[in-house]
Amino acid sequence: MYHDLPPADPSPAGCETLPKQVAALLAQWTAAPAAPLVVGVSGGPDSLALLHALWQGGYPAGLLIAAHLNHAIRPAAAADAQFVAETCAAWGIPCHVGQVDVPALQQARGLSLEEAARLARYQFLAQVARQVGAAGVAVGHNADDQAETVLMHFLRGAGLAGLRGMQPQSPLPGAPEIPLLRPLLYTGRDTIEAYCLAHGLTPVQDSSNQDVTLFRNRLRHELLPLLGEYSPQLRQRLGHTARLLAADYELLTALRDEAWSQVLLAETADWLQVDLAGWRALPLSLRRSTLRQAVWRLRSSLRDVGFEPVEQARRVAEDGPAGTQASLPGGLVLTVGYTEWVLAQPGRSFTPAGPQIAQPRPLPVPGRAALVNGWQITAEWLPQVDWAAVRGNRDPFVAYLSPEQVAGLHVRGRRPGERFQPLGLAGHSAKVKEVMINRRIPAGLRARWPVVAHEGHIVWLVGCMIDERAKLPRPGPAVWLRCQLAGGRSASAKP
Amino acid sequence: MYHDLPPADPSPAGCETLPKQVAALLAQWTAAPAAPLVVGVSGGPDSLALLHALWQGGYPAGLLIAAHLNHAIRPAAAADAQFVAETCAAWGIPCHVGQVDVPALQQARGLSLEEAARLARYQFLAQVARQVGAAGVAVGHNADDQAETVLMHFLRGAGLAGLRGMQPQSPLPGAPEIPLLRPLLYTGRDTIEAYCLAHGLTPVQDSSNQDVTLFRNRLRHELLPLLGEYSPQLRQRLGHTARLLAADYELLTALRDEAWSQVLLAETADWLQVDLAGWRALPLSLRRSTLRQAVWRLRSSLRDVGFEPVEQARRVAEDGPAGTQASLPGGLVLTVGYTEWVLAQPGRSFTPAGPQIAQPRPLPVPGRAALVNGWQITAEWLPQVDWAAVRGNRDPFVAYLSPEQVAGLHVRGRRPGERFQPLGLAGHSAKVKEVMINRRIPAGLRARWPVVAHEGHIVWLVGCMIDERAKLPRPGPAVWLRCQLAGGRSASAKP
Repeated sequence: MYHDLPPADPSPAGCETLPKQVAALLAQWTAAPAAPLVVGVSGGPDSLALLHALWQGGYPAGLLIAAHLNHAIRPAAAADAQFVAETCAAWGIPCHVGQVDVPALQQARGLSLEEAARLARYQFLAQVARQVGAAGVAVGHNADDQAETVLMHFLRGAGLAGLRGMQPQSPLPGAPEIPLLRPLLYTGRDTIEAYCLAHGLTPVQDSSNQDVTLFRNRLRHELLPLLGEYSPQLRQRLGHTARLLAADYELLTALRDEAWSQVLLAETADWLQVDLAGWRALPLSLRRSTLRQAVWRLRSSLRDVGFEPVEQARRVAEDGPAGTQASLPGGLVLTVGYTEWVLAQPGRSFTPAGPQIAQPRPLPVPGRAALVNGWQITAEWLPQVDWAAVRGNRDPFVAYLSPEQVAGLHVRGRRPGERFQPLGLAGHSAKVKEVMINRRIPAGLRARWPVVAHEGHIVWLVGCMIDERAKLPRPGPAVWLRCQLAGGRSASAKP
Repeated sequence: MYHDLPPADPSPAGCETLPKQVAALLAQWTAAPAAPLVVGVSGGPDSLALLHALWQGGYPAGLLIAAHLNHAIRPAAAADAQFVAETCAAWGIPCHVGQVDVPALQQARGLSLEEAARLARYQFLAQVARQVGAAGVAVGHNADDQAETVLMHFLRGAGLAGLRGMQPQSPLPGAPEIPLLRPLLYTGRDTIEAYCLAHGLTPVQDSSNQDVTLFRNRLRHELLPLLGEYSPQLRQRLGHTARLLAADYELLTALRDEAWSQVLLAETADWLQVDLAGWRALPLSLRRSTLRQAVWRLRSSLRDVGFEPVEQARRVAEDGPAGTQASLPGGLVLTVGYTEWVLAQPGRSFTPAGPQIAQPRPLPVPGRAALVNGWQITAEWLPQVDWAAVRGNRDPFVAYLSPEQVAGLHVRGRRPGERFQPLGLAGHSAKVKEVMINRRIPAGLRARWPVVAHEGHIVWLVGCMIDERAKLPRPGPAVWLRCQLAGGRSASAKP
């Protein structure tokens, strides 16, 4: 359940009530206020004020646990760790101090310094939280950090997931069963600094500054003050935007998960298969988000998955005939099949399953002919055809035939060198094999690919087009054929 | 149906193919390409390039109609109108020229100059489009205009509706049956200028600049170039954001409309009534959007409806007891009732309907007692009570009573000066009338407000609390009472 919260008093004067505000937020969030709360403390103003406010009544006495990670990046790091440990000792708060060689981690994992420090910090917080059986982990991100985050995502051209910024409650990265709490997310830096001053706190220069990129520092010190000239109270406004979009994102994510469970046909570590008609019927927003979900399922990451590759893959999946492919980041390949699309890891090539015929079979009208693997062709009489439906038919697995072409209809495979007269070529003939190649029917499927014919000639090359001689001469009665997976979901209903 | 479109070539070189791109977009959008297309032409680079590209093959010959409105703001306005008329004459395109005194309209309607010019322009375009039976109206907004629009909304703290920017297709303001089309929305200003140069077009200084605010001009000339230093290709990135959010917004709007039709109970021009339990069960995103919808229904505008007033009203509607009120912009007042909330125009005060009793009636256990207006109180035996449900009961219209208090139960109104012992006051007594006032039961409903009593004393002041003497002494059997509208939707199911 998503909780949206009343804003903390954004004025520095609000610092008087900070412990009460923090207590109110935590009471709203934490299901188990009798369990310990781990507080990530760098020693900077935000985390020090948070720890103090919690100690001053924000959380039940005796249940606070501080956790400080020495990143070993800056020379002053050891002094910071000592300051945090001494402060906690003076306040009677147990303090876990960890140390990690972030530059080494950075090299080993091929990360940026910022990413490595973040990873190490959350790993350490999760470890302490599990050790003490914590109800959650609290960190000191404030309303200015939030505005910077939202602005950074905006400049990168983000969607909702980025523009909603940080969440007041979210799963702890790497330990999703533990909630990560941000009780100061609605409190400005000015209020926090006033709080430190009012309570004689002497924070170290926030060591989290050491691992923020130059980009974020430029946003903070150059760009945000300048934007404030265009938009007074920009921090509050971006905070409002984040809160509105967070709720929208939550609802859309729930809808995406529901849609995903409906369209996903099968999944392994190497590939996943999505129902084509069901996916194509989703609204655009969910076609995009389920496609990103598919990438995420196979890569466990959406890193470097930008706008254009997803859009190109989406268009292929929406409109592409069977056999069409699109590349996605990480070497993933999307292949359109006849009733599904498949996303596969690099090198895991995929041949779409399609209709195949083993032995020739009669096709009674009305009636059906069974193919292999559950496919079938059904035939029906339409006493009066809807001419607009005939002209508008875009489904190559549906055909409207002249009622004069039904004697002796049967389904079989193509014959060597066989030709027919594709619709629209004014009676010119073409090789069945070449049409199949043009229409991208996979090589492995062509030999047993079904055609519908009578004694004279082919009337329908399934999945491609009908023969010119079998087309409906005029509005009136017609024969309606469909090739589909029996029990499969099909986009084309009977007219 | 929402169409998302392939991007135009964003490089100036793309100007070669502009007529084809425009033709492709229009073919995708316009259901009736045999009908005229009205093109709003200021004479500036965007609209002149658009008209030229349409004339050069973007739209069927003979169906283009130019429309130019002389805003009569600048001295050069008459010369601009003459330039557009002469250009159209040279190209053989019919041109409608209108004139409106925008400063006068501005004064008469109390608008800004920008708003008045925009209103006059769309009124004129709608008038021409209706006159010629147009399939749509095309205007020249480009990808840079889009980036400015998205940035402007971002700085104002917008939600999805603003951040999605302008739409490639939208209803023409004031004439929603006519589509407003923006075929250049994915084409940058640089491409358009290159196109003008390549085709010897000599646009006037775009007269739409005259009605853009200083704010937008500062964004264009100062802020966007600066932001480009932080984010290369910012125009494309903001365009991507707009396209992603537009699809999200479209889906959320459909969900809002669906939710609205489910929770709306009644509506007049003066007030509307929303099902309380149904509305409270909606996701946060939809609670917000339906509340804004309610304001929009009564005001036909969301002007000046900021974040905070809606959030405050939302919290009142979510948690407030019956009778609680919240103010919204335009003097609208939201009042929480017992089974609904009501939003009313200023001065249209609203007294929530509630349970009322005409004559005393017995309340058998199990059984029911009918009140007036369809309300009733039902009584049941619970053989074994769920103690957590008793403690967790937040619904004042549900009560758990001691099984020793059921002899002679009946429902009646309060007696003059009557007292009882409210639960939790350690046996201290209080006046029924004063408790009703504290619990905000409207004055007009108090006299006939139901209480459940036996011969000794009140056991339940409906909608408020039970009597201390009637509380469950221990886990075990209990009597469960509920007061509700018969057939009404209730949030509290029987445990």
